[in-house]
Amino acid sequence: MTVALSKRGEVEPFHAMDVLAKANRLRAKGLDVVSMAVGQPSDPAPVAVREAASGALVNGRIGYTDALGTTALRSAIAKHYGEHYDLDVSPSRVVVTTGSSAAFNLAFLAMFDSGDRVAIAAPGYPAYRNIMAALGIEVVEIELQGAAFLDADHLRTAWNEGPVKGLLFASPANPTGAVVPPDELERLLRTADELGVAVISDEIYHRLSYTSPDVTALAFDGDVTVINSFSKYYCMTGWRIGWMVVPEKLVRPIERIQQSLYISAPELSQIGAVEAFGATAELESVKARYARNRELLMTGLPSLGFSLAAPMDGAFYAFCDVSKLTNDSMDFASRMLDEAHVAATPGRDFDPLQGHRYMRFSYAGSEDEMREALRRLKNWMG
Amino acid sequence: MTVALSKRGEVEPFHAMDVLAKANRLRAKGLDVVSMAVGQPSDPAPVAVREAASGALVNGRIGYTDALGTTALRSAIAKHYGEHYDLDVSPSRVVVTTGSSAAFNLAFLAMFDSGDRVAIAAPGYPAYRNIMAALGIEVVEIELQGAAFLDADHLRTAWNEGPVKGLLFASPANPTGAVVPPDELERLLRTADELGVAVISDEIYHRLSYTSPDVTALAFDGDVTVINSFSKYYCMTGWRIGWMVVPEKLVRPIERIQQSLYISAPELSQIGAVEAFGATAELESVKARYARNRELLMTGLPSLGFSLAAPMDGAFYAFCDVSKLTNDSMDFASRMLDEAHVAATPGRDFDPLQGHRYMRFSYAGSEDEMREALRRLKNWMG
Repeated sequence: MTVALSKRGEVEPFHAMDVLAKANRLRAKGLDVVSMAVGQPSDPAPVAVREAASGALVNGRIGYTDALGTTALRSAIAKHYGEHYDLDVSPSRVVVTTGSSAAFNLAFLAMFDSGDRVAIAAPGYPAYRNIMAALGIEVVEIELQGAAFLDADHLRTAWNEGPVKGLLFASPANPTGAVVPPDELERLLRTADELGVAVISDEIYHRLSYTSPDVTALAFDGDVTVINSFSKYYCMTGWRIGWMVVPEKLVRPIERIQQSLYISAPELSQIGAVEAFGATAELESVKARYARNRELLMTGLPSLGFSLAAPMDGAFYAFCDVSKLTNDSMDFASRMLDEAHVAATPGRDFDPLQGHRYMRFSYAGSEDEMREALRRLKNWMG
Repeated sequence: MTVALSKRGEVEPFHAMDVLAKANRLRAKGLDVVSMAVGQPSDPAPVAVREAASGALVNGRIGYTDALGTTALRSAIAKHYGEHYDLDVSPSRVVVTTGSSAAFNLAFLAMFDSGDRVAIAAPGYPAYRNIMAALGIEVVEIELQGAAFLDADHLRTAWNEGPVKGLLFASPANPTGAVVPPDELERLLRTADELGVAVISDEIYHRLSYTSPDVTALAFDGDVTVINSFSKYYCMTGWRIGWMVVPEKLVRPIERIQQSLYISAPELSQIGAVEAFGATAELESVKARYARNRELLMTGLPSLGFSLAAPMDGAFYAFCDVSKLTNDSMDFASRMLDEAHVAATPGRDFDPLQGHRYMRFSYAGSEDEMREALRRLKNWMG
């Protein structure tokens, strides 16, 4: 009858997931909800991925793998760095993870202790902040105040207010879609190194840039911890499979933590993911749809009063300033779901201070869904 | 070029996983290794589970689910408590997790803060200790000193040396296989409540008891946090799918932490797991094989000098005292793998103090493997 409740259990919810749960409840009641809340492709994983998984199901046992991942998948990922970035990465530095979620947790645990200060951009992916809070890491929020991305000057200013041990950023970014240009990326990494700041580069939206080719942080600094995933470009969200490329010195600590905290990533997902890199034709046609959705929303949302607050360079998000429509985007999102049956994410997820002014719309769904959402919003807003 | 390495990254390895990785390397070289290192059934998941997953792969998208799990799986798990234990458990208290690994992490994060003291039995499952260490929780090891299981007196003695906030135990236990009798379980839970100690009951080896029916801690105290999994009895290790039953008050904190740390458990595994409870005939025949393996090892291991250090009531482990053979079971296990090509786990995993005297053999493999292992060990020790 004794129930223990920790302080760290009071962590902020991931509001997008709460919106997803509510959308699912409405759907279960028979309502037709258009969900633009979660960053989730509406396409299935590539055919070859699903066929490989089906084949493994026929043959039999799906078991634990080595904690760092199967040799086949670690090699396929290393090869991808050669093919996509023209970079030589050893499979020994690749860690297969249960989605990027596990990769963040593993990186934070292996790199930072309780009380360490780690900088992130606001707005940014909420799980960064929430996982670090759960682990006792002090989050240093760098408010971008309208800047498209976090740059070397932001880092230096933050550092001058108190040294930070780590820096984590994403390009293309969630929720803004902003891409850090290569020269700015290089300057940021050089500055981090000068200040003795260890860097985690979240590259989960790579291959989803509409305006420029991908540049990995590894091109400028081989000791950056890179996190990536099969969830977004490769349409494998629910498979929970991602990866990291880490400095040699971090491989064994991460292996030890993975052994106890995860054992290994799901084997079926590892078997499927090996085939993902060969499915480019199929995946590029999915990306072409995102590009069309992007065009639709780039004009459609502002015409309804949702001003674009970021450039939409990459990923599949429109980040909108809704301050002309409401001063409480959480309440606005809730009413929009209840009344217009369109789900989107309140800005609070991404920015605890300024989030009430913003909302994020995911355009990873179908073109029809985008048109239907715009139509419903137009009617609803009268 | 700046690499950060945390203190908590120095956590002890999960030696069984290191042995697995080494066994996999030897196999990749063409060597025929008999692995008794990892608690992993050699049978595939039940046919109905694999068919459900295959069907989902044809239909398409595998996506994020609600953080607490799909309604179908949460309901199926709740129903299992009625059928197997004659207990009424609401689906709202069921949390679907990415294996019991995630369940432990979620329970520890939601229940305990950094610096809290939590008691476990030694010997015990190493991940308990390793996850808690990574999270800054102080582990209070209760050395069983030959007792089959942790009882109310152990808890009281430990508590008198300094209050503990939580207690975690398993029945059937890993590595010993010991089952806590119902009256002792009730006394333990009553004592914990008297002392204000919150309890986590690890029931991952339920349905794998050879000597008595299962009793869940929930039968005596509805506020115990119960952790279970589809990995063991249901032969679904590599699917990474498990569950918890938690007090109402813990549901929302755990949901919030799950949203950020895991998003959700793999959907394909959730779809498959719904069918697992209907596969009893198939799974009981697997259990019958474990029972035969158990008989083989109960006589075979002691005849080679591996004295049984525990009763083998349940699970699929023989925990042996090897002090007549070596004073360093880590080195012994390593040589046994290199020379006899039989993999087993050194006791260090389970007991940091007394582990050098013990080894754990998993008998979840095939009967042929058990016979072959005994033959090889006999020749090797010849």
